[in-house]
Amino acid sequence: MAALQAGVWGVGSLLLLSAAAMAADEPAQEASESAPPSLPEPANGVAYPQGWQDWALVSVSHRTDNATMRVILGNDTAIEAIRAGQTNPWPEGSVLGKVVWKAVSLADWSSAQAPGTFVHAEFMFKGEGQADTGWRWARWVGEAQTPYQLSETECVACHSPVKGRDWVFTTPAPLP
Amino acid sequence: MAALQAGVWGVGSLLLLSAAAMAADEPAQEASESAPPSLPEPANGVAYPQGWQDWALVSVSHRTDNATMRVILGNDTAIEAIRAGQTNPWPEGSVLGKVVWKAVSLADWSSAQAPGTFVHAEFMFKGEGQADTGWRWARWVGEAQTPYQLSETECVACHSPVKGRDWVFTTPAPLP
Repeated sequence: MAALQAGVWGVGSLLLLSAAAMAADEPAQEASESAPPSLPEPANGVAYPQGWQDWALVSVSHRTDNATMRVILGNDTAIEAIRAGQTNPWPEGSVLGKVVWKAVSLADWSSAQAPGTFVHAEFMFKGEGQADTGWRWARWVGEAQTPYQLSETECVACHSPVKGRDWVFTTPAPLP
Repeated sequence: MAALQAGVWGVGSLLLLSAAAMAADEPAQEASESAPPSLPEPANGVAYPQGWQDWALVSVSHRTDNATMRVILGNDTAIEAIRAGQTNPWPEGSVLGKVVWKAVSLADWSSAQAPGTFVHAEFMFKGEGQADTGWRWARWVGEAQTPYQLSETECVACHSPVKGRDWVFTTPAPLP
């Protein structure tokens, strides 16, 4: 488990080293032009979970009531908890991400529903949570990842039916 | 890009070191009992793509014609190609995995379709391919990951409608 986290930190360190090496080889102006874009602003008091695009799969869903496709991803702590079968409660530090697109028919297989326009990415952070839930929710909207202004009750109210599942709708998909 | 690959190999190395350290602390018999299970046998002449459960997301789909949920994952080469916008053709070494479950209604949100029983995981390997496609296909069935005996024409015939998209149905989902 620690090895997995160390590995991921290793990637970050290598990327930083790589960026530093590139910068050293280039004139100052070019290095500045090639600097990575800044992270989106925090939402609901939570820092943007950088690198979630590389997180491993938890599950997928197709909400037919609002025609959206979703994938649920987890940070290392969440994935380790799933593989250990210990997700009720989820351990401190778990982050679950839900990535949402409008559903469209796949161009070459019309009976398949697939992602169209990106809608938002929203996250649950286990730790010092909202309203004694143990979780804090946050959402970033559109490809620009604009912080969404949540009310304190909005997420908690919607997730109340699954309070007995540690406030999580998703059941991790079975994997070999 | 090299850093990303180095990072992933780093995880593998750390896990091996971790396993070796655990084995050193335990009596020989227990170490043997806790040894990881062997990999599934090759399918269609291709070695099992170990570690695909940690690969990053390419897309998702819900096939309404056979009531299955799918996620499409990519190895590092495939994910790098997507982020560089260079997927027609996909570069040598790309591997795309499609993970398939029977679709069921989510227990606490009945209008959401979600993964039920695991069906199979199937992969496309870019390189020395079948029938001049540049790809080799392979499938492992069920949670036991039993190699599936493909005929030489089975995959190629189904993928022929997307020959002009380098034989790939999936369009990578847009991500911020």
